[in-house]
Amino acid sequence: MAKFMDVHSGFFGVTQQQLAEAHQRDLDIEADEGVHFEQAWLDPESGKVFCLATGPSKDAVMRIHARAGHPTAEVYELPVEV
Amino acid sequence: MAKFMDVHSGFFGVTQQQLAEAHQRDLDIEADEGVHFEQAWLDPESGKVFCLATGPSKDAVMRIHARAGHPTAEVYELPVEV
Repeated sequence: MAKFMDVHSGFFGVTQQQLAEAHQRDLDIEADEGVHFEQAWLDPESGKVFCLATGPSKDAVMRIHARAGHPTAEVYELPVEV
Repeated sequence: MAKFMDVHSGFFGVTQQQLAEAHQRDLDIEADEGVHFEQAWLDPESGKVFCLATGPSKDAVMRIHARAGHPTAEVYELPVEV
């Protein structure tokens, strides 16, 4: 199981509730790919969202996000952390 | 106190020990600005580092990273999280 950070753009002015709903759409289907989205942080001013996830592969993370309606190509595998 | 994610580029092939040393240089001086760097994740293949921090301002985070030898202009304030 690897760890991943993915980055979404264009979430300008998104609220706590909207982020929670988007996150829930990931959680509802993540088991299909053996992925778990642990946490997500939003900067509504720049429209950036950072999601921390675990899963078997970058592609698995991307497939869940795409099916949940917020695709991103920007997914980084994180083998090192402090 | 706000929360921030900052992104560094160019950390290709950096090891766990090198990341720990870079992070320690932040920790050594972060109190000067009331900043705390909580966690950092590295993708050595793309050279990206993501740092999660708390502090009084984006500028304070940037000043500590600059003094520690790894400046970045890419710092996002994170008022929303799930």
